[in-house]
Amino acid sequence: MTQVKIVEVGLRDGLQNEQMTLSTKMKVEIAQGLIRAGVTELEVTSFVHPQWVPQLADAQDLARALPAEPDVRYRALVPNRKGLERALETPVDEYAIFLSASETHNRKNINKTLEETYPVLKEVVELARSRGKKVRGYVSTVFGCPYEGEVPVRQTAAICERLFEMGVYEVSLGDTIGVATPHQVKAVLRILTQHFPPEQLAGHFHDTRGTALVNTYVCLEAGVTTLDSAFGGLGGCPYAPGASGNLATEDLVYMLEGMGIRTGIDLDALCQVSLQVQERLGKRLPSKVLQSREAILNKEKEGLG
Amino acid sequence: MTQVKIVEVGLRDGLQNEQMTLSTKMKVEIAQGLIRAGVTELEVTSFVHPQWVPQLADAQDLARALPAEPDVRYRALVPNRKGLERALETPVDEYAIFLSASETHNRKNINKTLEETYPVLKEVVELARSRGKKVRGYVSTVFGCPYEGEVPVRQTAAICERLFEMGVYEVSLGDTIGVATPHQVKAVLRILTQHFPPEQLAGHFHDTRGTALVNTYVCLEAGVTTLDSAFGGLGGCPYAPGASGNLATEDLVYMLEGMGIRTGIDLDALCQVSLQVQERLGKRLPSKVLQSREAILNKEKEGLG
Repeated sequence: MTQVKIVEVGLRDGLQNEQMTLSTKMKVEIAQGLIRAGVTELEVTSFVHPQWVPQLADAQDLARALPAEPDVRYRALVPNRKGLERALETPVDEYAIFLSASETHNRKNINKTLEETYPVLKEVVELARSRGKKVRGYVSTVFGCPYEGEVPVRQTAAICERLFEMGVYEVSLGDTIGVATPHQVKAVLRILTQHFPPEQLAGHFHDTRGTALVNTYVCLEAGVTTLDSAFGGLGGCPYAPGASGNLATEDLVYMLEGMGIRTGIDLDALCQVSLQVQERLGKRLPSKVLQSREAILNKEKEGLG
Repeated sequence: MTQVKIVEVGLRDGLQNEQMTLSTKMKVEIAQGLIRAGVTELEVTSFVHPQWVPQLADAQDLARALPAEPDVRYRALVPNRKGLERALETPVDEYAIFLSASETHNRKNINKTLEETYPVLKEVVELARSRGKKVRGYVSTVFGCPYEGEVPVRQTAAICERLFEMGVYEVSLGDTIGVATPHQVKAVLRILTQHFPPEQLAGHFHDTRGTALVNTYVCLEAGVTTLDSAFGGLGGCPYAPGASGNLATEDLVYMLEGMGIRTGIDLDALCQVSLQVQERLGKRLPSKVLQSREAILNKEKEGLG
């Protein structure tokens, strides 16, 4: 059976899209809960300038407060040398750099052209690796850009090429605005896996239009077995209370276990974490598995079970 | 490109699971809206005893009030001869009979063993066909039963066999409690399509655990191209406001169109219908496409677009 690596990105990609900023203490509790549930790869924060993402402004404090666990890897985003220097003062295990597949999104997001971005990232990768740290690359808007629409695969392939040349060990392909559909994912992966081994690619889908799970299924069929997801499906758009963010870890785990793929993650324990966060944020998280468990709990409470 | 037939079941399978009963007038408006959006196959009601499903107690009135449209087929469930007689007094185009793949669910749902059920259904099919009406068969709990757990495929195959012998033209395979996962769907269809042509099967998935869309994708891969869905993803559990019911037609259409499969359904027009129903029911409907469109609308309203 296929081995799948789930990278839990809720503390970073989820929380950075929430209006409410959680306390460092609460984030540590979430991390502890996720680890108890069996999560081993946690992207916990981002060392971007605190002004940009106030929700993650406690990056250093959080990274220092996380419990050291032998089988758990903590990851963090680093945008540039300055961010890396802050990150290096913490015990984070692994870093991720990021850029966009489309010029316009890249400029809007990090205020640089792609060509201007590469040297910044190269410096980060080289310094990180000289300190013995692995670096992942994120490419955003691979399956569609809010400004440019469709993004040619050759552009993504060229960016992956540059990232691997720099020394990243893996590239996570992001459907940042949640527009991807299965045949598109299949087509993109068919081309990318001609150039790069599928083991060096990861799928990062947002569920904005309900296609995140089917897109990860297509990834598995293409041999891409590293999948990003967020507990509860955290990270929805602040303008629609029920709108979806990242693929929900609960839903991914449910599908994988049903496919005979052992994830090592306990769904009940994971849902406990999401329920707590849901209560703190004061809004429902979109994970379907979470909601169906909650429905059972509510029914039992009403004595109708 | 594959041709897909979408059977819109929201007015029946969706509404029968809602606590609020909509007026006949509102249902007619919904049907008109769905037809304007391009829906051509509408399961509109059920001729079960009104006491069982008060939400659909207006079956005859509704069926008579629906606008006659040359390219639109109205369908209705009929449980037995009595129901069929009521249905035959209306201009409904096509009927559907139903039973469960698991004995216990069948008994709890229609108070009969499977063996006791067959003659009742046979009578319906024969009488309906003698009046020139096509009959579809529904098999519930194909992918799992709330009482028995896993359901052996050979049981489903035997039931399909009986239904086709009676003269149904198609069997819709129901994941009634929304537990199916892709490999399971693939395995079930691999066996069933050894016995029956895929054109005579349909997929009917509930999104309770987020897997409905990926399961329909697996159907398409197996050549099963008739798919049931409900506008807005109507039909969620009343104990959890955000919980999912049927696969959302919006999300299915979005995926299919993204795969180059023309559905003839206009997403904007479809979302308009769901937004109206959402407002009437006083709760969010779970379709992701609907929610993302609503998010854009809200954003524009707040002047942040």
